[in-house]
Amino acid sequence: MTGKVYLVGAGPGDPELLTLKALRVLRSADAVLHDDLVAPEILQLVSPTAQIFNVGKRCGKKKIQQAEINSLMVALAASGLRVVRLKGGDPLIFGRAGEEIEALRGSNIPFEIVPGVTTALGAAAAAQIPLTHRRASSSLVLITAHLSKKGATRKGAAESDASDWSNFVASGATLVIYMPGQNYAYIAKRLTAAGLAGNTPCAIISRATTKYQRTHRTTVVELHRAPQLVAPTLLVVGEVVGLADPAAVAMEFALPELLQRNDKDTVLPEPVFNTLRPQTPAAIDEESMS
Amino acid sequence: MTGKVYLVGAGPGDPELLTLKALRVLRSADAVLHDDLVAPEILQLVSPTAQIFNVGKRCGKKKIQQAEINSLMVALAASGLRVVRLKGGDPLIFGRAGEEIEALRGSNIPFEIVPGVTTALGAAAAAQIPLTHRRASSSLVLITAHLSKKGATRKGAAESDASDWSNFVASGATLVIYMPGQNYAYIAKRLTAAGLAGNTPCAIISRATTKYQRTHRTTVVELHRAPQLVAPTLLVVGEVVGLADPAAVAMEFALPELLQRNDKDTVLPEPVFNTLRPQTPAAIDEESMS
Repeated sequence: MTGKVYLVGAGPGDPELLTLKALRVLRSADAVLHDDLVAPEILQLVSPTAQIFNVGKRCGKKKIQQAEINSLMVALAASGLRVVRLKGGDPLIFGRAGEEIEALRGSNIPFEIVPGVTTALGAAAAAQIPLTHRRASSSLVLITAHLSKKGATRKGAAESDASDWSNFVASGATLVIYMPGQNYAYIAKRLTAAGLAGNTPCAIISRATTKYQRTHRTTVVELHRAPQLVAPTLLVVGEVVGLADPAAVAMEFALPELLQRNDKDTVLPEPVFNTLRPQTPAAIDEESMS
Repeated sequence: MTGKVYLVGAGPGDPELLTLKALRVLRSADAVLHDDLVAPEILQLVSPTAQIFNVGKRCGKKKIQQAEINSLMVALAASGLRVVRLKGGDPLIFGRAGEEIEALRGSNIPFEIVPGVTTALGAAAAAQIPLTHRRASSSLVLITAHLSKKGATRKGAAESDASDWSNFVASGATLVIYMPGQNYAYIAKRLTAAGLAGNTPCAIISRATTKYQRTHRTTVVELHRAPQLVAPTLLVVGEVVGLADPAAVAMEFALPELLQRNDKDTVLPEPVFNTLRPQTPAAIDEESMS
């Protein structure tokens, strides 16, 4: 009997931003394949008898290929297991879920997508930036600073990086740049080359919605002077950033009862695929942020 | 002693897509001000002793002004209460949270934003549309079909509706149009006038992530023939829609224990402001969708 795969968003960082549905499917999962960015508190929800695989793209020394993740997911489900593919943020935004969906369809594996709070929304909430505003911006653009190799060969990608963004800048939309990297001078150059005014407010938000969150507000022209904040980071650009409170914002962090386990700590089994490593403390992997 | 306001996203429709944090603050709230689109199951989480106000913009006969909502929120918090302002989707996207944040700051009311799963993500998950894809789209644009009156007077809004969208179309991004209304012919005209190819796939998703969800897949040139689906709807436009499974997708719906109450049904108190109506069965209000 074929099992089922759930492509699940774990939210932006704070374990409390998990949805009730994600909680339910995690608790009943037989196997979990997770990215590096998923909080350890969330992984502790998984049944002690479940198999857990860290398939973060940069975990350990071996870089796991997307095709390996797809094969593992399909093999586990084909053997009758309930499999959760757990991604930071939301699975359908910059999470390569499209490729996983194709693999599942190709093997006739039933699947379901459980959406999550994407990192942009978590970061904006934590920094109190209204992403749209009747006076400042009526649209929101989510982009990445990294171009994929395949993306670079698609139609229209002969344009320079700057012209890639010029349409978005011309629209007046709020821009949220996922995975901006730490070369802020280069990002600022791309933004100004795309036509953005140097005095446009922007904010770098590091490790959004966690206790380690840091926010740095600046302008595009001053962006290159910003401190190098710890990944994962997110860059929000637009007039709406000027509406955020410059003061540090205190957020509540609570580990709800639901996330507390009274039983013994989860014992993580050895993985069945020897190219995959057992669960290790979460490392930072920008590629798995969405 | 001043209370606190939580601006909380209730998610796209399915009560199970509420976050654990939203659940916590709702349970401990002294007062809840909610939009029409919030599911009744979510409102039943609120303590029976809490005050509940439906401040949906179209509830009953009287249209509640944003200023009234702001005043009520401030007054309740100033009297020492823990107040939840509950919005469909995420509070920071098309939810007018920016104006509420300004009112709260102006009155020195402490507040916190609890992000939610925005409707675009819920709808895409339910229709199995990867919003970004390495082969098809590297960016996502969230827009509304309605222009606000204030928006229409801002700089640059002298451009026609079509040119408003031409930058987004030129970018090749996936477009998600919130509140598209039911004049599909007009939407299609705006999209083609903005430069979009007529054979671009698109999908109307009605009442996303609820049991009543319906999805209609078509192309921009055929959009005017689409059935009039029940609001709230969302229109997803772009090559990624072609990657969705055309077959109807079965989603699991579960009312988790968390959402079940064994105690007597919540008795809803009379509202303290006579311009505001007591809780009534949720009506459809596109304006409160985000």
